[in-house]
Amino acid sequence: MESQAAKIILQIFVMFAAAKILAIVAERARVPGVIAEILAGILIGPEVLKLVALQDWTTALAAIGAIILLFDVGLDQKLTTLLRVGWTALLVALLGVVLPFFLGYGLLRLADHSQTEAIFVGAAMVATSVGITARVLQDLGALQSVVATVILGAAVIDDILGMVVLAIVSSLSEGRVDWVEIGSVAGLAVGFTIFIVLVGRRVIRRLAPRVARFAPTNPYFVLALTICLGLSVAAEKIGMAAIIGAFLAGMVFSEEEIGPMLKEKMHSVHEFLVPFFFVAMGMQMKLSVFVQREILVLAVVVTVLAILGKLVGCGLGAYGLGWRSALQVGVGMVPRGEVGIIVASVGLGLHTISDGLYAVVIVM
Amino acid sequence: MESQAAKIILQIFVMFAAAKILAIVAERARVPGVIAEILAGILIGPEVLKLVALQDWTTALAAIGAIILLFDVGLDQKLTTLLRVGWTALLVALLGVVLPFFLGYGLLRLADHSQTEAIFVGAAMVATSVGITARVLQDLGALQSVVATVILGAAVIDDILGMVVLAIVSSLSEGRVDWVEIGSVAGLAVGFTIFIVLVGRRVIRRLAPRVARFAPTNPYFVLALTICLGLSVAAEKIGMAAIIGAFLAGMVFSEEEIGPMLKEKMHSVHEFLVPFFFVAMGMQMKLSVFVQREILVLAVVVTVLAILGKLVGCGLGAYGLGWRSALQVGVGMVPRGEVGIIVASVGLGLHTISDGLYAVVIVM
Repeated sequence: MESQAAKIILQIFVMFAAAKILAIVAERARVPGVIAEILAGILIGPEVLKLVALQDWTTALAAIGAIILLFDVGLDQKLTTLLRVGWTALLVALLGVVLPFFLGYGLLRLADHSQTEAIFVGAAMVATSVGITARVLQDLGALQSVVATVILGAAVIDDILGMVVLAIVSSLSEGRVDWVEIGSVAGLAVGFTIFIVLVGRRVIRRLAPRVARFAPTNPYFVLALTICLGLSVAAEKIGMAAIIGAFLAGMVFSEEEIGPMLKEKMHSVHEFLVPFFFVAMGMQMKLSVFVQREILVLAVVVTVLAILGKLVGCGLGAYGLGWRSALQVGVGMVPRGEVGIIVASVGLGLHTISDGLYAVVIVM
Repeated sequence: MESQAAKIILQIFVMFAAAKILAIVAERARVPGVIAEILAGILIGPEVLKLVALQDWTTALAAIGAIILLFDVGLDQKLTTLLRVGWTALLVALLGVVLPFFLGYGLLRLADHSQTEAIFVGAAMVATSVGITARVLQDLGALQSVVATVILGAAVIDDILGMVVLAIVSSLSEGRVDWVEIGSVAGLAVGFTIFIVLVGRRVIRRLAPRVARFAPTNPYFVLALTICLGLSVAAEKIGMAAIIGAFLAGMVFSEEEIGPMLKEKMHSVHEFLVPFFFVAMGMQMKLSVFVQREILVLAVVVTVLAILGKLVGCGLGAYGLGWRSALQVGVGMVPRGEVGIIVASVGLGLHTISDGLYAVVIVM
């Protein structure tokens, strides 16, 4: 192994070990592991310990991690579940998207930021972390309750809305807000999504048995990974984020009999690769921006508004279930996570939001 | 996701899909998937289709793939199995190492190559592919026979001898053959190996329950990955190849109760990441060298000698089991694979063997 590989292996070890050690500590302190992994990235990154620098290969590992994460999240989302909870979930999701977005957008405009930046922060405040919500519900043994079904159903629509918002946000790379273009991008995103969900399922259902007959060793997992990577590339090609393709690929497979088997196989790949995504996210954060008082205040206000927006918006949406259940739904929709961070990193990558605002979103 | 990530994702998709499609075709044709994956690398690499170039991140993925592969191979190797088959296996392994090495060394010296190059090719001819042998035995349903036990036992010793040879080979980076230095490197390698095997097992046995109590979610898998990466770094630090550390880590865990569980979890990670190693190997191969007649002839002769060397050497070692069994053992030890390729890539990385000789080894 040449010396370049030796250096890379050392840094991979540092990234993985730091993420996992902090995640174990966080788990004890009942803090989500996601936060621990981002902290690990900040710690070993260019601003603090300077152990690992951002390079092409950290970008590659982070991209793979994000794709695996969204594919895995997609595997948890079933269209059938979505249809069962119906209108309540849709209402919860819509209000839960609209309210936080306009709170974030309004706040940023009031604080004299550009319209593009305001939209980015608003968008980052939209997405509920399905992973965290599902995990909390599971821990409480409440996965079968009506409240849980509404929360998960709303979270699904929320994710799709989030994807549309993400597509909108991606189109802002030129720094101007062209509503016609956004409309067509949104249309393309919705069309792509519907096409994959409807046609994708049929294709998989016909393709899977053939692949299985042709290649007896572990065919579904390899097929799923190939399609996941392929749809990521396709999403990228039509101007969406790669991770949206991965998410749709996961959703397509979640309906199949092989879904649970894939989920289990994916679990260990997830465990190994996803931390690199969050660690790399942490490594991108510039701590120095918090020295500015304005950014720090903004981070706190955005965080509070993000919580309030979801709580009120989703609570209102679920009001038909009674006061108590509505509150539970509102609380269940509060966790913000991966998708918001991804929106923020898209913005950072396109240089449309400042390092300061990126840090604000990460704090939230 | 910024545009650099988009390019990387596209190339990752191309690498993975090419490897898997060719591997499926190869499986139908009863050709080992390894060969298909290397072919995929040659095909998409800089010499043919030019779809993917060798970059830092392909090096990183290849390094991770190699580490996962050797850890997985290590998980199949049990010290107790080794001790059970005893002297016959040792004799088979020793003769199976000595004969091919001197055949390769002698041939290269006769063909007027440098001593360093001769040692490299000899070393690459030494290692049996445990993975392939085990898979063939499994396919034949012969995993429980005496012949199988001897083959697998010998393959274990063979791998350790191969590791020592690899350590020797790694010390040749300066292009001179310092026997005292090689002796000390070999001593260090043997010492490191024995230390890990003896002390490592005790540490794991004490550490695992504590980690499990501290972090209830999936602790063993994360612990195993961390130790695997950590020992890879440690091996690298004392001058051995990183993959040797990964192999030893696997062997340490193979003895534990959690071995089979790890093996299963590792399987999907292996399925996803190992192809990148072989594809990257293929990408490094310069096809143009085969235009030289001498290299082509050498490739054929080396391949024939590699097969004969193992067949005769291992057959002689197992002669005590009777003529028929001895022949079976000899045939079982013929497959050459991952380790030989790794030896060759070490040589290429250190610029001690020419591109031509690298191609010779890959053909073998």
